[in-house]
Amino acid sequence: MTGRVTPPSGARLRLDRVLHALGDPVRLEVVRRLARDGECSCAALDGGRPKSTMSHHFRVLREAGLVETRAQGTTHLNALCRASVDAAFPGLLAAVVGAPEG
Amino acid sequence: MTGRVTPPSGARLRLDRVLHALGDPVRLEVVRRLARDGECSCAALDGGRPKSTMSHHFRVLREAGLVETRAQGTTHLNALCRASVDAAFPGLLAAVVGAPEG
Repeated sequence: MTGRVTPPSGARLRLDRVLHALGDPVRLEVVRRLARDGECSCAALDGGRPKSTMSHHFRVLREAGLVETRAQGTTHLNALCRASVDAAFPGLLAAVVGAPEG
Repeated sequence: MTGRVTPPSGARLRLDRVLHALGDPVRLEVVRRLARDGECSCAALDGGRPKSTMSHHFRVLREAGLVETRAQGTTHLNALCRASVDAAFPGLLAAVVGAPEG
């Protein structure tokens, strides 16, 4: 299986949806982890949480335009859409990723 | 009636709760308006929405530590807790308030 789930383009990024996607502790942790470590598999990011729960969180992140996911064999690899989010909302990811834990 | 609903102190501000509070179009509009115009009454911010709806939104904003409300006679005046949010999460409000509409 190959392919890429296309996130919204920069032009369609909506600030309220981006903030909503970030406003959950699990999704926030995923975004901060992707910012720190780069592309990660779903398994590396689930922290032992149920697959259905994580599927929901990844869908919210993708639909907001924060994360893109590509299939590599049977693995899904996730990456932060840093360039498009930075272009739409300068300084937002830097503030979120740079903030202290908690 | 006088008094002030005390928001969380800077030490207790949580990034996920702040982002959750910002991640709603009505609350985001309120925060951007307070950043632009300073202290505003609830009535000036409701945009014709029902009082019960706005009470909920103001509660979420207060509980996240983004807004503080003080009573002046029968009016409630709301202000952005800019200093404490800036101290806890530098650059976050600037990015959110400075972002283009929508």
